[in-house]
Formats: sequence, C-alpha cells, structure tokens
Amino acid sequence: MSTSFTMIGGEGPESYRQHSKYQGGLLEAATEKINEAISTKLNIDLASNLVNIADFGCSTGPNTFRAVQTIIDAVEHKYQQENNLEEIEFQVFFNDSSNNDFNTLFKTLPPARKYFVTGVPASFFGRVLPRSSLHVGVSSYSLHFLSKIPKKIKYCDSHAWNKDIHCTGFSKEVVRAYLDQYKVDMESFLTARAQELVSGGLLFLLGSCLPNGVQMSETLNGMMIDCIGSSLNDIAKQGMIDQEKLETFKLPIYVAYTGVIKQIIEENVYYTTERFDIISHENEEIPLDPEFLTVSFKVTVGGIVASQFGQHVMEKTFEVVKTKTQEMLPQLANAKPGMQYLIVLKRI
Amino acid sequence: MSTSFTMIGGEGPESYRQHSKYQGGLLEAATEKINEAISTKLNIDLASNLVNIADFGCSTGPNTFRAVQTIIDAVEHKYQQENNLEEIEFQVFFNDSSNNDFNTLFKTLPPARKYFVTGVPASFFGRVLPRSSLHVGVSSYSLHFLSKIPKKIKYCDSHAWNKDIHCTGFSKEVVRAYLDQYKVDMESFLTARAQELVSGGLLFLLGSCLPNGVQMSETLNGMMIDCIGSSLNDIAKQGMIDQEKLETFKLPIYVAYTGVIKQIIEENVYYTTERFDIISHENEEIPLDPEFLTVSFKVTVGGIVASQFGQHVMEKTFEVVKTKTQEMLPQLANAKPGMQYLIVLKRI
Repeated sequence: MSTSFTMIGGEGPESYRQHSKYQGGLLEAATEKINEAISTKLNIDLASNLVNIADFGCSTGPNTFRAVQTIIDAVEHKYQQENNLEEIEFQVFFNDSSNNDFNTLFKTLPPARKYFVTGVPASFFGRVLPRSSLHVGVSSYSLHFLSKIPKKIKYCDSHAWNKDIHCTGFSKEVVRAYLDQYKVDMESFLTARAQELVSGGLLFLLGSCLPNGVQMSETLNGMMIDCIGSSLNDIAKQGMIDQEKLETFKLPIYVAYTGVIKQIIEENVYYTTERFDIISHENEEIPLDPEFLTVSFKVTVGGIVASQFGQHVMEKTFEVVKTKTQEMLPQLANAKPGMQYLIVLKRI
Repeated sequence: MSTSFTMIGGEGPESYRQHSKYQGGLLEAATEKINEAISTKLNIDLASNLVNIADFGCSTGPNTFRAVQTIIDAVEHKYQQENNLEEIEFQVFFNDSSNNDFNTLFKTLPPARKYFVTGVPASFFGRVLPRSSLHVGVSSYSLHFLSKIPKKIKYCDSHAWNKDIHCTGFSKEVVRAYLDQYKVDMESFLTARAQELVSGGLLFLLGSCLPNGVQMSETLNGMMIDCIGSSLNDIAKQGMIDQEKLETFKLPIYVAYTGVIKQIIEENVYYTTERFDIISHENEEIPLDPEFLTVSFKVTVGGIVASQFGQHVMEKTFEVVKTKTQEMLPQLANAKPGMQYLIVLKRI
C-alpha cells in the first residue's frame, strides 16, 4: 500500500525544477526567521569541525539549494567570532525517495557551493541518517504527502470509501482516515529526525496548512485537485482508463489544520517548539492563469497519475484540466485562502 | 580540459550494470584478502557507534554493492565480540562523478541492506567527504581513468601529439605525457583520501595493471581500444565525423606498470602499505566472442564516444568494432596477458 510521491524530474519546461517558485516563496519569506532561530537557538558542539545539514524531501532544486545555503550562511554568521571557523566543514544530505530524479539534482548543483554533497535515497518516514549525526534539518512542502493511502477509503465496498481522489474535507469518515494516517506519519517523521539530530540541533518545517473551519475543496489547491479528479473521470468515460481502477485511485495528500499540526508538535516529547508561525508570502496569491495553474499541478501531481495510468493518459488528463480550469476561473477567484507555516523545533 | 569518464547507465542490455562481471571477478578473488586485512589491520575507534564506508568510482552496481557488503561483513565479524555491536551503524558513501547514473544506482539498491545509503556526486581527484570521517574506502577499476587528457598529446602541431586514441605504449613521448598525468592524479587521489580517512582506517585499491615490458597495445584491452580507434577512422572516412575533431579525440585511460604503481604508493607519506598483491581471477580469460567483447567495451568506452560524437555515431562505430573484432580473433587469442592488483593501505 505504500506510495511515494515524486515531483516530475528533469529540467524541461514541464519539470518541478522549473515550476517550484510558489514553494520557494515561503522559504524566502521565512529566511529572516531561520537566521534568527539559528543565531539564538542552535546549540551544538563544533569540536569535530563538521556541521551536517539535511533537507528531507528535497526534490530537484533549486529551492533545496536556497534552503541549505540559507542555513549554512546563518551558521557561519553565528560562529564567525570563533577562531576555527575556517576549519569548519559543511556536509549536506539531500534526501528524497529513491525514485526522485537525483541525476538532475546532482547536475544542477550550485557551482560555487562550499559544502560536501550527498544524496540520500530513502523514505523520510523512517531513519535515513545515523544516530546523532545531524545538526540542522529542514523539510519544506513535504509533510502533506502521506506515506500511504488509508486502506478503508480506497475500496468502494468500505463504508469509509472516498469517492473523490483526495480528502475534500466534506466526509467525516474520510477526513478521519486521512487524519489518522497523517498523525502516524508525522510521529514517524519526528521520531526518526529526533534520533538523527544531536541535542541542541534544530529542525525547520515549512509547508501548507488549512485555516480552522475551511475545507480543502474550498481552497484553490483543493479545487484544482478536484478538477484533476473530474478530468480523470472524463478520461474514464472516454474509455481511456478503467473506471474500476480509477475508483481506487486516491492521492496521498492531506493538508492539516493549523490546530492539528500544533497538537502533534506539542505532544512530541523530543523537541521544544521554538517557533510556530503562520506566514504569508508574496506568491500566496497564485496567478489565476489556466496555463500556469495546470503546469503547477502537473509537475507535482502528474507523476503519480502517470505511474498509475501511464504517460499518455496523464498528458490527456492535464489537457482536460486546462480546459476546465479556464471555465473555473470565477470559482477559483473566490477560493478561501490557505495558509503556510514555519515551525522551528529544537532537539532536547 | 577536464573530462569525466562515465559508464553507460540504466539497466538495459547495453548498460554497465549488465556487463561488469569482469570487474566483479577481481573483487570476488580478493574477498578473503579484504577480510583478512580488516581483521588484522583495521584499527578504528568505535566510540561513536558509526562506521563510514565509501566506494570511489562506484558506477551503477552491482559490483559496488558486493564490495561494500564484503567490507561491512568483515567489520562486523571483527567486532563481533564487542558488546555494543548491535548499536553500530554503517553509512555507505557511493561516490562517482555527477554525470554517473545515480538514479539507476539508487533504484537497484539491495533491498535487505543494513546500512544508510548516500550518493556522493563529485570528482574523486579532490575531496568529496569531510575530514577524518571515513573508516574504510575502496576503489575498484577506477584509477586507470585520468582526470584529463595531457594537453601536449592532443593537438597534432605538438611534437608529442598522439596519433592513436589512447596510450598504446609505443611512443615514448606519449607514454611520458600520460604517465605524468597519472602520477599527478594518483597523488591527488591518495592525498584527498588521506584527509578523509581516520587514522587506522583502510583503503583498498583494485584494478588493472601492466606486467613490466608489456605494451598496452599488446594486451587484449589495448587491442580492443586500438580497434575502436580504427573504427572511428573508418567512420570519419565515410564522412560521418570530422577528421580534425577525431584527431584531437583521446581517451583518458592509462594502465600503469606494476612498478610504477608500487613506486607511487611507496612515495606517499600518509599510508603504510599492508598488501601489494597481483591477483589472477577466473574472469581474467575473457571469452573471445565478438558480441561479448564489443558490448564490454561499449558500456565502458561508448559513453565518452557518444558525448564527443553523438549517440548515432557511437552506435555505428561499435557496429564496425564488432566486424573488426571478428577478423581480429586470431590476433586477440595471442594477446599478452594483463594483470590485476589488490593494494591495501592503512592511514597512519
């Protein structure tokens, strides 16, 4: 049942690499807060002259390169008074699932980097690094991807079967199933990172969340995923994919309420919460352009559609998505706004 | 001028992954000696409960997986009496140049592995890992690839211009140029590894070498590379590639004499030489089958031909190679045997 959610690789016009400005915007908005947290909260022993940094769910860049450079600059700034700063070396662990396009990641590394690069192909719901080896971790727009689809929402003979391809928010039983999985996954993630982090190390979590009272399908992201679902339905009606197979096709995406995330973070015993901020960033108002919207969702959701139904069906589906998006523009203009979070955790 | 020599990626019928049994044979023959060296010579502090292992020039497997597993088994065997063996974690750094096919490497990892995986995309002629972070390193069939083509053998207005595509061994000036570059590269490699290795750590070097008095073009490998050169000439005569471009096309390959390697190793001040063995292995007698020989050289040399002249020319060239190999069989049967080495160095 396990799935892994991978962005579209390569460097082409329809790659995640070319269409991740939205995700990068939050990082930009959070930079000063990251600097401040490293300056005032990071508390590590530099005796080994080595600082290990990891990005969990790095995809193909360039956002991951900006994230780790932000952290390195802040660490260097913090310790600039120390005599041996020149001797400090940085090693960066770029983590994503083993079907991520690491070849593109490696070929597009910033030429002027001053750190040792490693790629770590493994699911971040388990351990991916040795015990007590990590000083600063970051994970950006990754934790709304679940480790698997809750079984009971997948099959239509289950009372909790989800007729939609994601958690729209309107069925209590479906929400409960997604939420249960989300809690399990978040706990797995936080526990694994707690084992990897040294005491006094920091973990930055960035991503999307839902304002209390707002349903996923009332937000622009939710409406777009609904649109992908209805486009797949059209494709099934044309006979290009099997209706029964489509009925069991669900996306492992759950955008949690701010309150839910807060509760999970606070219940975890390994960390102190140094920041829990809701951030607005300049890209929050996504341009209401059918072309832009379609490509943005193609690079993130297209991969999993292609892996289930093939590349051709995926291409056809997103042609339909584009047409539907054009028709949906007035509705999208009235979507309820989502939210972004920046969480800073310190390993006890 | 710098080049990087990359094996053909993927898992297809004409990939290095499917055609690296020859290189794997030496590892198999060396396994007992590796076990013994780790048992009697490795001298590391296990206080951190972490053992870091690296393969420099790993390509896509499966040989690299066998090499690191051999090392891990030997380390576990050595420390099995220690109480905290269960707490010891292994981290493996798979290193190759950034245009290596890491995606294939990561997708074909042994499912039952008990180590943390990282890929390290960087040239091993420089530092690729933090200072004093490595316990055991290995490099197999990598050190005959030079970091670059010596400039003076490349252009035909130079008195040391090499009319062949590699170092056949028959021109003293060409040999000198290749040898000088080889010495620089070996020293760079050994110095970088010395900085990365902890004191008491081990470095295993495996590969091909030439018996004293034998010229490269008198061996099967040398004859096959000569054959690739003359096939490229035929292709140029047919007008498919530019004769002038071909004149500057040289392979960054230098198979050194046993004596040369011994001298370089002994002059290095960072290591003690624990073993310097010449090994025969069961695959040493390569089957004299044109199909087999052509594919074997296509997966190793084809990549650099394709990068210079395009995929189509590469395919055409190796069609000619196959025909010529058929005609060359009597000559190949009388080739002088090459040699393989296993060197065990201990970091002082």
